[in-house]
Amino acid sequence: MMAIRVQKYGGTSVADIDRINRVADRVSKAYDEGDKVVVVLSAMAGVTDSLISLARKAAPKPDTRELDVLLATGEQTTAALLAMILTSRGYMAKSFLGFQAGIRTDKTSGKARILDIDGKNILNALHAGYIAVVAGFQGADEDGDITTLGRGGSDTSAVAIASSLKADVCEIFTDVDGVYTTDPRICDKARKIKRITYEEMLEMAILGAKVLQIRSVEFAKKYNVPVHVRSSFNEEEGTMVVNETADMESVVVSGITCDMNEARITLKNVPDQPGTSAKIFTPLAEAEICVDMIIQNTQSNGDTDLTFTVTKDDFAKAREITERVAKEIGSPEVVTATDIAKVSVIGLGMKSHSGVAAAMFQALANENINIRLISTSEIRISCVIQAKYAELAVRTLHTAFGLDQEPK
Amino acid sequence: MMAIRVQKYGGTSVADIDRINRVADRVSKAYDEGDKVVVVLSAMAGVTDSLISLARKAAPKPDTRELDVLLATGEQTTAALLAMILTSRGYMAKSFLGFQAGIRTDKTSGKARILDIDGKNILNALHAGYIAVVAGFQGADEDGDITTLGRGGSDTSAVAIASSLKADVCEIFTDVDGVYTTDPRICDKARKIKRITYEEMLEMAILGAKVLQIRSVEFAKKYNVPVHVRSSFNEEEGTMVVNETADMESVVVSGITCDMNEARITLKNVPDQPGTSAKIFTPLAEAEICVDMIIQNTQSNGDTDLTFTVTKDDFAKAREITERVAKEIGSPEVVTATDIAKVSVIGLGMKSHSGVAAAMFQALANENINIRLISTSEIRISCVIQAKYAELAVRTLHTAFGLDQEPK
Repeated sequence: MMAIRVQKYGGTSVADIDRINRVADRVSKAYDEGDKVVVVLSAMAGVTDSLISLARKAAPKPDTRELDVLLATGEQTTAALLAMILTSRGYMAKSFLGFQAGIRTDKTSGKARILDIDGKNILNALHAGYIAVVAGFQGADEDGDITTLGRGGSDTSAVAIASSLKADVCEIFTDVDGVYTTDPRICDKARKIKRITYEEMLEMAILGAKVLQIRSVEFAKKYNVPVHVRSSFNEEEGTMVVNETADMESVVVSGITCDMNEARITLKNVPDQPGTSAKIFTPLAEAEICVDMIIQNTQSNGDTDLTFTVTKDDFAKAREITERVAKEIGSPEVVTATDIAKVSVIGLGMKSHSGVAAAMFQALANENINIRLISTSEIRISCVIQAKYAELAVRTLHTAFGLDQEPK
Repeated sequence: MMAIRVQKYGGTSVADIDRINRVADRVSKAYDEGDKVVVVLSAMAGVTDSLISLARKAAPKPDTRELDVLLATGEQTTAALLAMILTSRGYMAKSFLGFQAGIRTDKTSGKARILDIDGKNILNALHAGYIAVVAGFQGADEDGDITTLGRGGSDTSAVAIASSLKADVCEIFTDVDGVYTTDPRICDKARKIKRITYEEMLEMAILGAKVLQIRSVEFAKKYNVPVHVRSSFNEEEGTMVVNETADMESVVVSGITCDMNEARITLKNVPDQPGTSAKIFTPLAEAEICVDMIIQNTQSNGDTDLTFTVTKDDFAKAREITERVAKEIGSPEVVTATDIAKVSVIGLGMKSHSGVAAAMFQALANENINIRLISTSEIRISCVIQAKYAELAVRTLHTAFGLDQEPK
């Protein structure tokens, strides 16, 4: 049966003409198999960064509308080149810029959100026998102004187009084989996951697994788009990101992540008064600092400590603000640490299996690893530990939750 | 009084960020003087050629639709950069791609013709106080496909936009001071022409004066757009290209051109039969060879020679075809010459002044320069001579027609 396949190729897969030729091999193979093929492309690796540098040379803080016009040339270039190559090989192929592909966004230059997609032009081309080659990462707002979707936006373009065309699959071709149970560089028993739910993938993306952009997973979840994350350098099956199915809850924990990019800030003896938290977090928000975990604990003597984490990039600025606020509210001391790691276990099965948290704490305790902070979601438990134990913790949890072997 | 000024800057004027900053100086000065300013930009010098090379690496004969998509990124880049620079200096500025500027063309990829311009978006921006920065060289056809206007197309973009906005002037900023009576490298008495008619400018552009693209002059003539050709490196007045005014016919000859890029092909003793010319020129046309001058002369003994000129680029191919045809039609000999020059005098005043041809032939004869071919239009006389006399002929004619001095 003829299927609609959306294939997305990232920057390393289209880094030069040779690689674009290899993309053409794969695209034409899918077409020859009888499928209708829509290709979504990123800019050549490095091009977006070069364009940003050029813009900064022109203006220290480039106008965001114009930056979008400039950046959009990156994907325009790769789309035209692939369409040329396919055409020269005798295939019918046609490039579509964001506005031509009917990708309508809001007006937030630089990180626009897709409002809707009018798939008419692409569908017409597919039905006429064309391969549709779409410039990823870009759209147009209601005034016809060019917008871009932010870093990794081509993933979102691909999923959104797949959704609007009711495609049978959205294949995300990347430089890794798929989604792994944990980082193979840390744990040599890491395995490629065959199927993962949108919810789990979302948690993993938020925790720093870079295979898929967070918003593209949200989009896929919302519109139930089957996503296949796979390597552009081999033919192997990758990881299917799908809706929950009955058998999936039997796997309690699907993956372990480790994030070394956070730092911890603690305000000691915070006065127990209404509005104190607001006094602390409002100036951080105004400085556009994203706070991750927040824990407030009152000790037996009645003193309350307030601890939170931020990314290491924001740490210096956050500490400065926090120390100022501490004086204002009467907290006597601000304690910080940058040698921390956030280790998380993620699994849809947690929802129906109790005791996952206890098992996690016990496994870490067995290795004498101290837990400094804990936070949880419905399908995730995260512990902040000392950075030096990070690798040990990941391997310990990988074994403890039975991830070293293929699930039965 | 507030005027609408369209300013076009070529590739050398926007070759890097420093030069774009200098363009911004000039644009903002015009804006500060109270004018409404529309800027039309070319791609950075060399960029279009690089993109063509990239396309040829992707496909030996790149699909023309996709080549247009690729080439359009060049002007998109400069337009975004200038708009950024102006914005960062506190001006309201906005870039417009071809389709956003309402430039609607036919579907001839690579050398599309402008059908009409919907100036609504640009006018709205001007009235809201914006400087409009338009990507030259590009438009969109009725299907919304991106098209480009061919080499030098930004001149045409600028003139067409000026026409649609009923602009007070279309300033073409380039790397020369204006239009000269002849090439200053050949004749040190060459003078900048203050005012020239569209018709004269058209003849000069066709004869190889590279300051303005031929089609842009045709467009300016058709819609009566006042064009000011001037240097982007100084503040001096350049050359105004305008409609004929009463006083302009008093100047008999406005300029002298010299084209060294032609070659001559002669078929000897062509049989005097109907259809012979068609047999010669049809295969040349089919090979897309442009024939310039054609002269047939019957000698006293009844023999007829047929001579024509082609560009040196086409010469080898044209000679090959002609030699084949000569055998077919029974012409005994094909004689060729590449060491020729075409020297032309151009002037609107010729229409009302007889004797210009005679004066030209006499001036050349006085220097013992033999004329091999002659062709004329209403306001031009061209003579093909031996290449070695080219410079002497230009200087002789420049003096003979009183161009060494400023007109009274």
